[in-house]
Amino acid sequence: MAKVTPYEVEGEIDYNKVVKEFGASLIDEKLKSKLAGLRLVDKDIFFAHRDLDKIINKDFAIVSGRGPSAKLTLAHLQIFKFVKEMQDKFGCRVFIPFSDDEKFLLNPNLDFEESRRLAYENALDIVALGFDPKKTEIIMDFKNMDQELFNLSMRCAKTITNNTVRSAFGFTGDKNIGINFYSAMQIAHILYPTVKYNIPSVVVVGVDQDIFIKLARDVAYKLKLPKPGDLLSKFLPSLSGGVKMSASNPGSAIYTDDSMKDVEKKLKKAFSGGRETVEEHRKKGGDPSVDVCYQYLDLFLENDAAKLKEIHDDYKSGKLLSGELKKYTIKKVQEFLREHQKKREKAKKMLDKFLV
Amino acid sequence: MAKVTPYEVEGEIDYNKVVKEFGASLIDEKLKSKLAGLRLVDKDIFFAHRDLDKIINKDFAIVSGRGPSAKLTLAHLQIFKFVKEMQDKFGCRVFIPFSDDEKFLLNPNLDFEESRRLAYENALDIVALGFDPKKTEIIMDFKNMDQELFNLSMRCAKTITNNTVRSAFGFTGDKNIGINFYSAMQIAHILYPTVKYNIPSVVVVGVDQDIFIKLARDVAYKLKLPKPGDLLSKFLPSLSGGVKMSASNPGSAIYTDDSMKDVEKKLKKAFSGGRETVEEHRKKGGDPSVDVCYQYLDLFLENDAAKLKEIHDDYKSGKLLSGELKKYTIKKVQEFLREHQKKREKAKKMLDKFLV
Repeated sequence: MAKVTPYEVEGEIDYNKVVKEFGASLIDEKLKSKLAGLRLVDKDIFFAHRDLDKIINKDFAIVSGRGPSAKLTLAHLQIFKFVKEMQDKFGCRVFIPFSDDEKFLLNPNLDFEESRRLAYENALDIVALGFDPKKTEIIMDFKNMDQELFNLSMRCAKTITNNTVRSAFGFTGDKNIGINFYSAMQIAHILYPTVKYNIPSVVVVGVDQDIFIKLARDVAYKLKLPKPGDLLSKFLPSLSGGVKMSASNPGSAIYTDDSMKDVEKKLKKAFSGGRETVEEHRKKGGDPSVDVCYQYLDLFLENDAAKLKEIHDDYKSGKLLSGELKKYTIKKVQEFLREHQKKREKAKKMLDKFLV
Repeated sequence: MAKVTPYEVEGEIDYNKVVKEFGASLIDEKLKSKLAGLRLVDKDIFFAHRDLDKIINKDFAIVSGRGPSAKLTLAHLQIFKFVKEMQDKFGCRVFIPFSDDEKFLLNPNLDFEESRRLAYENALDIVALGFDPKKTEIIMDFKNMDQELFNLSMRCAKTITNNTVRSAFGFTGDKNIGINFYSAMQIAHILYPTVKYNIPSVVVVGVDQDIFIKLARDVAYKLKLPKPGDLLSKFLPSLSGGVKMSASNPGSAIYTDDSMKDVEKKLKKAFSGGRETVEEHRKKGGDPSVDVCYQYLDLFLENDAAKLKEIHDDYKSGKLLSGELKKYTIKKVQEFLREHQKKREKAKKMLDKFLV
């Protein structure tokens, strides 16, 4: 039995069931056509939503936050790249809150300065993606807390009882008072563009965070604000083929600051859909649907659809070997990262333009 | 049996016992001599402390906050006047936080804008007292939240469990998450000058708030900061002669924006230490120790010591009648308020100089 909460993800996930349990909706054909051209929707990574079908017809803001617990992984980065593509497609405002405070409160071993540092490092990666500085705002709670956001967090807090966060997240009395309060800050992050610009928010987020949007919708109702919607993603593959790419397990992910050598080493060890021996592979073929390298190409990196199909078919037929697929993927990841790391350097001078 | 907590004061108070229970110290002769010339110490209104005897020998900051639940009373104002006299005597920094957020969180009927308005109105009264703008800082949490204060509140929050605030203040699970969190903000208010200027804080406050200082001292220890001290006052007399002057019961106090007529009306009704009839008064004399008008003169308004003694003795002997004492006090209060209200008007232009 799978368990999916903002603080825990366990087991094999039946996404349709999760969505049904949560009360969200699957993306239907009509909505899909409005999101046409967005790769992660086409690839069914973003698969569910709340109210996006209504909100998308007018002006809206995207909220996509980041808990800077560790270095950004390549997969996390692709989520923000998706947000950037949404901005390009819809011309919408994007608000990116960094919950350095939440991470600090949750982790007994994380000190204040380190929380700030992580937020800064993560922000550089995101700015490097080329968001429009006129329409994109970043708040790092510990660096540029905004009066409007603070006030909103208190207005939210007034509508949420300790019993509510206890039943939603299991927070018992031995948790610190900041952790309880943080739900209000998270919801304030979500409602910030609504209060500031009088437009509804759409939260682009992993399906495990959906409960925050549910809570935020209750709070919005109490504050007489338009309810936020969301666009929910499945978990992205980890290098071991497991369910959730984790930024806190170094071996399980490629980081945006990995060296070219790191990339090679990690992908060589990544979970493969190939067979035990070359002979067996040639005979029976590989399984691209579980092959981490193929997933990277499919979801993020191979922009040439014909080439992708060729790789898929050749791998499945046994013509393309695991080693060859890995070699190709390593080259693609390295190209992407080399370019990204250059842009990330330039982002150091641009970050200030994004702060509220 | 008296009950004294930040949220409740009941019954007759044995101050020595309260101090002993709380673990604070009475002001001894040595400390009193260092505080010489401060009227409210001489009059034994400020009567107890924590660590002030140590802290007073070096540079320190005074923290004296204000929960803007209603208009400021004359008695509350005198507490801030005392703080101003401390600043004059010791040349120390003063930090005045307005917990508009706390009042908003605690009171279901108080809306956000009204909380802000009350803080602003109260701040004008305090600025009118003539604090040194170079050494005095005001934060209204909903108006000029400071990044340093916000960060500090989160650092404090991490060290305090929900169980702790439950046992300290009786906050059960049905309280909102902001109320629980607010303890951290209150303590951050207290430790703000310590973090900003690297000097210990002395909180000038009513004895009922002492538990916050106790908590703040625990938190300071955990954050490796110097522990704050405090200087504790007794409750000031209400017009009915009761224990605590309440800003939320209009009849029980004189407000800083009362008209001259209001003053007259209220003091005429104020609790008197006089006798039932003129004859009885002439014969047995009045009791200045319970007479509200005499208390006003004694604690706040009569700067001429000889005149005060004369009033005391004449009232006690029966030579001075209640009506005469009231008439004199009304005149004194009106003089004070008339002057104060002028300064308060001027404060509107000065307030910005005090905001961090």
